Amino acid sequence: MEFEESGIGEECGVFGCVAAGEWPTQLEVAQVLTLGLVALQHRGQESAGVVTSNGASPPTYTSHKGMGLVSSAFPPEALLKLRYGNLGICHTRYSTTGISELQNCQPFVVDTLHGKIAVAHNGELVNARALRKKVMRHGVGLSTGSDSELITQLLALTPPMEELDTPDWVARIKNLMTETPTSYSLLIMFKDVVYAVRDPYGNRPLCIGRLVPISKLHSTGAEEEDTEGWVVSSESCSFQSIGAKYYREVLPGEIVQISKHGVQSLTIVPRPEGDPPAFCIFEYVYFARPDSIFEGQMVYTVRQRCGQQLAIEAPTDADVVSTVPESATPAALGYAHQSGLPYTEVLCKNRYVGRTFIQPNTRLRQLGVAKKFGVLTDNFAGKRVVLIDDSIVRGNTISPIIKLLREAGATEVHIRVASPPIKFPCYMGINIPTKEELIANKPEFKDIAGYIGADSVEYLTVEGLVSAVQEGIASLNKDKISSGSVSGKMVGHCTACLTGKYPVELEW
Amino acid sequence: MEFEESGIGEECGVFGCVAAGEWPTQLEVAQVLTLGLVALQHRGQESAGVVTSNGASPPTYTSHKGMGLVSSAFPPEALLKLRYGNLGICHTRYSTTGISELQNCQPFVVDTLHGKIAVAHNGELVNARALRKKVMRHGVGLSTGSDSELITQLLALTPPMEELDTPDWVARIKNLMTETPTSYSLLIMFKDVVYAVRDPYGNRPLCIGRLVPISKLHSTGAEEEDTEGWVVSSESCSFQSIGAKYYREVLPGEIVQISKHGVQSLTIVPRPEGDPPAFCIFEYVYFARPDSIFEGQMVYTVRQRCGQQLAIEAPTDADVVSTVPESATPAALGYAHQSGLPYTEVLCKNRYVGRTFIQPNTRLRQLGVAKKFGVLTDNFAGKRVVLIDDSIVRGNTISPIIKLLREAGATEVHIRVASPPIKFPCYMGINIPTKEELIANKPEFKDIAGYIGADSVEYLTVEGLVSAVQEGIASLNKDKISSGSVSGKMVGHCTACLTGKYPVELEW
Amino acid sequence: MEFEESGIGEECGVFGCVAAGEWPTQLEVAQVLTLGLVALQHRGQESAGVVTSNGASPPTYTSHKGMGLVSSAFPPEALLKLRYGNLGICHTRYSTTGISELQNCQPFVVDTLHGKIAVAHNGELVNARALRKKVMRHGVGLSTGSDSELITQLLALTPPMEELDTPDWVARIKNLMTETPTSYSLLIMFKDVVYAVRDPYGNRPLCIGRLVPISKLHSTGAEEEDTEGWVVSSESCSFQSIGAKYYREVLPGEIVQISKHGVQSLTIVPRPEGDPPAFCIFEYVYFARPDSIFEGQMVYTVRQRCGQQLAIEAPTDADVVSTVPESATPAALGYAHQSGLPYTEVLCKNRYVGRTFIQPNTRLRQLGVAKKFGVLTDNFAGKRVVLIDDSIVRGNTISPIIKLLREAGATEVHIRVASPPIKFPCYMGINIPTKEELIANKPEFKDIAGYIGADSVEYLTVEGLVSAVQEGIASLNKDKISSGSVSGKMVGHCTACLTGKYPVELEW
Amino acid sequence: MEFEESGIGEECGVFGCVAAGEWPTQLEVAQVLTLGLVALQHRGQESAGVVTSNGASPPTYTSHKGMGLVSSAFPPEALLKLRYGNLGICHTRYSTTGISELQNCQPFVVDTLHGKIAVAHNGELVNARALRKKVMRHGVGLSTGSDSELITQLLALTPPMEELDTPDWVARIKNLMTETPTSYSLLIMFKDVVYAVRDPYGNRPLCIGRLVPISKLHSTGAEEEDTEGWVVSSESCSFQSIGAKYYREVLPGEIVQISKHGVQSLTIVPRPEGDPPAFCIFEYVYFARPDSIFEGQMVYTVRQRCGQQLAIEAPTDADVVSTVPESATPAALGYAHQSGLPYTEVLCKNRYVGRTFIQPNTRLRQLGVAKKFGVLTDNFAGKRVVLIDDSIVRGNTISPIIKLLREAGATEVHIRVASPPIKFPCYMGINIPTKEELIANKPEFKDIAGYIGADSVEYLTVEGLVSAVQEGIASLNKDKISSGSVSGKMVGHCTACLTGKYPVELEW
Repeated sequence: MEFEESGIGEECGVFGCVAAGEWPTQLEVAQVLTLGLVALQHRGQESAGVVTSNGASPPTYTSHKGMGLVSSAFPPEALLKLRYGNLGICHTRYSTTGISELQNCQPFVVDTLHGKIAVAHNGELVNARALRKKVMRHGVGLSTGSDSELITQLLALTPPMEELDTPDWVARIKNLMTETPTSYSLLIMFKDVVYAVRDPYGNRPLCIGRLVPISKLHSTGAEEEDTEGWVVSSESCSFQSIGAKYYREVLPGEIVQISKHGVQSLTIVPRPEGDPPAFCIFEYVYFARPDSIFEGQMVYTVRQRCGQQLAIEAPTDADVVSTVPESATPAALGYAHQSGLPYTEVLCKNRYVGRTFIQPNTRLRQLGVAKKFGVLTDNFAGKRVVLIDDSIVRGNTISPIIKLLREAGATEVHIRVASPPIKFPCYMGINIPTKEELIANKPEFKDIAGYIGADSVEYLTVEGLVSAVQEGIASLNKDKISSGSVSGKMVGHCTACLTGKYPVELEW
Repeated sequence: MEFEESGIGEECGVFGCVAAGEWPTQLEVAQVLTLGLVALQHRGQESAGVVTSNGASPPTYTSHKGMGLVSSAFPPEALLKLRYGNLGICHTRYSTTGISELQNCQPFVVDTLHGKIAVAHNGELVNARALRKKVMRHGVGLSTGSDSELITQLLALTPPMEELDTPDWVARIKNLMTETPTSYSLLIMFKDVVYAVRDPYGNRPLCIGRLVPISKLHSTGAEEEDTEGWVVSSESCSFQSIGAKYYREVLPGEIVQISKHGVQSLTIVPRPEGDPPAFCIFEYVYFARPDSIFEGQMVYTVRQRCGQQLAIEAPTDADVVSTVPESATPAALGYAHQSGLPYTEVLCKNRYVGRTFIQPNTRLRQLGVAKKFGVLTDNFAGKRVVLIDDSIVRGNTISPIIKLLREAGATEVHIRVASPPIKFPCYMGINIPTKEELIANKPEFKDIAGYIGADSVEYLTVEGLVSAVQEGIASLNKDKISSGSVSGKMVGHCTACLTGKYPVELEW
Repeated sequence: MEFEESGIGEECGVFGCVAAGEWPTQLEVAQVLTLGLVALQHRGQESAGVVTSNGASPPTYTSHKGMGLVSSAFPPEALLKLRYGNLGICHTRYSTTGISELQNCQPFVVDTLHGKIAVAHNGELVNARALRKKVMRHGVGLSTGSDSELITQLLALTPPMEELDTPDWVARIKNLMTETPTSYSLLIMFKDVVYAVRDPYGNRPLCIGRLVPISKLHSTGAEEEDTEGWVVSSESCSFQSIGAKYYREVLPGEIVQISKHGVQSLTIVPRPEGDPPAFCIFEYVYFARPDSIFEGQMVYTVRQRCGQQLAIEAPTDADVVSTVPESATPAALGYAHQSGLPYTEVLCKNRYVGRTFIQPNTRLRQLGVAKKFGVLTDNFAGKRVVLIDDSIVRGNTISPIIKLLREAGATEVHIRVASPPIKFPCYMGINIPTKEELIANKPEFKDIAGYIGADSVEYLTVEGLVSAVQEGIASLNKDKISSGSVSGKMVGHCTACLTGKYPVELEW
Repeated sequence: MEFEESGIGEECGVFGCVAAGEWPTQLEVAQVLTLGLVALQHRGQESAGVVTSNGASPPTYTSHKGMGLVSSAFPPEALLKLRYGNLGICHTRYSTTGISELQNCQPFVVDTLHGKIAVAHNGELVNARALRKKVMRHGVGLSTGSDSELITQLLALTPPMEELDTPDWVARIKNLMTETPTSYSLLIMFKDVVYAVRDPYGNRPLCIGRLVPISKLHSTGAEEEDTEGWVVSSESCSFQSIGAKYYREVLPGEIVQISKHGVQSLTIVPRPEGDPPAFCIFEYVYFARPDSIFEGQMVYTVRQRCGQQLAIEAPTDADVVSTVPESATPAALGYAHQSGLPYTEVLCKNRYVGRTFIQPNTRLRQLGVAKKFGVLTDNFAGKRVVLIDDSIVRGNTISPIIKLLREAGATEVHIRVASPPIKFPCYMGINIPTKEELIANKPEFKDIAGYIGADSVEYLTVEGLVSAVQEGIASLNKDKISSGSVSGKMVGHCTACLTGKYPVELEW
């Protein structure tokens, strides 16, 4: 909803949980999974799916999938159905098109000679087309266009499916990782184990948390014997709502095995010599919830630093600094702090308008996006406003906002964007408008201020963004180098949508 | 709904349509498909699915699936979405369990090296387990437990998927038919063609109809140039509601190709030497709609003959003959006619009770099935009643009905069943209660009359049933031998659920 | 649904229940009410409402109302909400127009100076307009157009609402009955009592049943000490599904008080001197369920007699007699019996078509009503058919059926209608098309056979209908005169829609 | 949703629209009404209703009502149905209990001797009980417990309903206003006119806007000839989303007539001598949207002043000032500005948690409200936090938040509340927990800081709140005294829930 005008969107969130200790567990795994998913809802609102396993031999898998938000897709009956799970994985998906199909909903579960596996995937395989052809040449029909089905069939396909008692899934996962470099954060459930996998470039996030008794949630002594279960999630913001403590990130290329006995790092599949990691920089800029932690730093803080950097790069002679609520607020506060200009609110969001239903004909269409924002006139009438936005994708949202502010009495409106212009498509899991739709590729971009009606427009530079992101990691590294979660040479970010420099060849 | 007490049920209905002549067609293929499906709704109420193709190179497939009746699963938007189809296939499914999944809903569509194929299946593969293992050993993961997915993957798998321009689907279908003998009636859509396939034993029905202009629907001259399209259906009862004329049956083992150019018989895969066909005799007794035509004869007429035969085999000294509405009515009229006893109605069905919602606790549970029927007291009070039922599966429906009639004044209640006792499970597509649940396998069956509270109970013999069914075909054969739809040696029926004699070894 | 082509429909059904003996009752009153209502569903499918009272001082009333069938309007939560009722009344309403409002849904409950009363009404006040004006002149605003609200306000209004402890509701009801002669069958609940009221002309039906333990349901000794509760219903067909025994009719003009202590006749408000009763004859012909009992006779039997009478009045030279299922079947069997011609079925109803959803454009619209019926060709091909219908209202249903039969091979089709032509509007609770829409008022009626495409058309005469109805009552009277439920001079029926002779002046 | 923990809630919002100029209007009145209602959704989420009139003689009224948010209660069909309205009123209602009834949904429409009137009401009549008795003694049954029905019946009842051609509704409204002093803001529609009425104490808000062509929306010259229609609303925040300009408030006691010819003040019913107005001060503190304008001042600005005043009254020795998002943000910014302490965000709201569905058992219940907020740790770890809240009603929300902040590293947490403690019930339209539930009335309140776990807790004083509110009006008065919208002696606010001083005797 928030992204609807920009047309830019994350494609998925994944979440998993494994109860620790004896099974059947007292932990309500299905509730942990669905609440964990609710906290990743900003990463996808199209559909939601949960698969649980009781972990027995052979295991019983139970799944539920539904369209829409987790809250509507999971009525009480669904939770009841899932209640005997001792472990499980789940997935939430972004709404990319109007008509969407329940059958695209993940996790994808297939029966193989060795039993059922379930896969939840965040990302997009850069060489999906070649891999599809390979699978189909083998004689496999693919029932969806999704990479998740492709991944499950690849896992089933190679190496050959001998009739062994114990299949070597880890070898299969490693094999898969040599066939496709990026981008994927995967949760793979088999019987009583969840494998958490991040591609060698670390393009999509994935981190691990530890469920402790609520009473010990905030005690500092991390006594592992208290562990009630392990969770793994696209973002750490999901940990608080289920009572989990942040444990660590899954590293680029790492395969982590999570069982009732604990968390075990199995291997790290390396990148080609010399390639730096390529964590998506837009997770910081735009997608992630501000309270999530990536690479040891809070997203909110990075956004604030972006605002500060922007104030240094693009100062403004103005009276007040403000934000396009809610996502640009940390950057706006950073800008205000750095510039010394007072921060104020100029817009309030109409909470209910997002759900509006009416096909606005004639009169009402003219009102445009303005009807989503109430104007706090007295805070800026007669003043020069610097308005911070987190990004300008197509330019169709900011333009009517500027008009609104002017008409309500702003004497000047200067736009400062806390990220560089988006110019290139993403092939690694982010839904970006076509090159032609991006304002940065239009002829009008030369006079962007005139085009959108602002007095001036300035963007953060790529260098500024990268330094705002990496500065925090660097300082972290000094302190926390021993924690193993980051190391100097492991820092690197994908800026392909800004620079066109993709971390790998696009079609392997 | 009608079958809910008996617990016996058909598992599916299939329907297809190919517009004749130039494409894009004026024929509203999506409407023909869904209305055709509505007329097969008695074969399955769990879910419904339609896939259409525009027939172009490469083709665009559009599909819609939904839970429940066709009328609720296909809102107007669904039809809108499907409107550009020039051909299509569809499927309706029986509700076997409470919780059912949309992903089991057919037709099953998969993408292969040669393009997408769609498959709709009625039946059950007797050697499904072995075939699943074979497919999985090849490295294919199976995402559902359905035979339809298995069939699509088998079609994709063997022979190897070379990168030819034109795949030989017919060879693949023939190959499939050598791997599994029964039971299946299949519709397979590829690009611009629908293949209609019936297993060599002809266990499940399948027939072809011809769409003509409504104005010519009832003209006798079958001028083929008037053909607007071809339809193929599990039962001919679906033809009238869409304005189609009955054309012919698909023969056991036959592969028929239906394209815009017409209907072409490609091949007939033979049965093992000496094996007769094995068309499910319960289609006549129970499943099919009375106005459907199988083997040249109307189902209603066969049921009437069963009643007549029953009157010969098991005459009764009584005052009136009646029916358990609605399915036993033709047999009751046949019995009445043969015996010379007057026919009357003793029960009227409460049309709305079937949809009842209330969990009946205490008092109301005791009322049992009786609340589904109103008693037409004056028609039988003080009289001896022969009540004809089409089958007694578990005995839990007929018993309270007898009690009801007695209490309302019937002096005697004699039960005559127009089919033999069901004693064996079906592995060919029919959902039958477990052996233990079947009344005919219970110790109480020795005194079935006492058990259900009747004055006497008699069943039609297997021989009587077979002769009632085949007598009509025989007489047909004299007249219509030249029509090609039946021939003497092609007559034979599966009576496995009555006799335990299965047409093939159960696990190939 | 059944009536959709004819456009003729009952407007309501009412049902009430009072638990006998000590309160809180063990009887599940809410379940009895809703199941009773399900059995009256044929009298109205638009909406359903239930109001229960715990009977305390002051009482707690609980109500639930919903659109559509009882089964969808009463989810389990609704029953839960109503569960503490010791008595209650309920109502089901006919769908007259597409857009209907929940607020028209009965029972109507209002708070008065003396506490809440609830009213459920079947019928239509002939002088509603004058009464509305009277009420509004008193300064009361009316929030709906329904007679039920009008009745509740009239009950509240006059005589003046003094602040007495015990209001004289019976005096108020009697007063109401002097202000409006017909038509109404009313259930009025106040605190711990239900008043069952039938207008002096007895235009709408109402009868009383007795709930006994299921085990004693069919014992003949009517020992009143076994009574678990009392029910009152528009039709006796609702008694069987809840385990009640038929007790007696409410007489024209009678006010019956039903409490936990039993059933008490309070008074009978007389008709004007010389006026006979005017029970709606179309309840017999068309509306009622065949197993209901009016005036001591089963509706099915009356319909059979209509068929016999029709065979006497309008014999046919034909081969078979058949029915337009399902409502005309008793008349067809009666006709067959009287004429000696064999009875057969020529049409089978498509159970699922009634729920169809598709806006039939072009091709499919031409198929018309025919798609609702499957043709049982072999039963009549080459034969002359007498088809019995219960009524022909607009002629748009029978015409395509005749065409269908001819095209399937009937050599002649003769229509015999088991009721006289409808020519006049009803102002007493029945929804009939406008005078212009009625086939009997169209110029084409002169050659009705030609117009609908039949070889001949004959209607039952008014005299024939009346005698078929009253003959049974007369014979009853000889036997059961002592039962008090009927007496010779109390026989009389409203035939206004056939003859234009209304029982009272239309606007008092 | 926002208020769910506090349990304090507004009870309604009203909105009306009258198209200017010739009728049928080109203005899409139904769309204006529903979008206007969406912007008042924060005042009530239980149900929504719209009634339109075509304004003809006699008028056709059309209404639609539904449960839940406007967006779900008004599907496209509903708008279609309402489309011929030239004027209309609508209403949104607060969800007070789980089970709520559509029939309580406003506007209330009744038919009277003079035609239909529709009434939408925001407020609560202090003497409702006495008025109900009066109406019922007259013989009127009341079908709901709502004041709206009572108001409509009072309007219909007195003075007597002579059969005049033109009823004097204005006299009736004036009469009503003498019978009940407060609280009500009413919209009354009769045929072609909407009367906007505010009670003499002005307890509930009501203001008028002017629809102009979108192109002229922001032109400064207020040329009245451009007027496309008039709107009237509980809050001015609804004007922007429909393209209306703020016109003026309805004054306490005023009856304004709005017709296609414009806006006309008919009369002002005075308060008792000496009584000041009593506009609900909690509209400023809590209920209203921050961009709404009351008494000439923006709500956001008042909240900011409350924060400033609070900083003066209750300074804190701390490191950062923050807010409980989102409603306390203006106060927090005001506090920060006044105190000179830096403002930061410490909590981010989980947008999707509000809609959560899961009955949290065991583990998850312990997490409490904390799961609604993400913690922005880095912004306050190691710091002393002043957290501003707008009110503390029951204390069950703030307590876990404090715990959360401490556990995430806040060294001190000081709570500053931008309003005084709520101690008394409201009988004028606000839903407040019982006296016992209010934290301010509990024994623990003596050590509130200890009870909720804060280092200190301070409330704004009543005097501080009143001065923060009235200061803006005073300064306005100097400038805008000529605008007629406020005058010195017309200032006064209801602080009953804080002080127990009710503006009128509670039961007249």
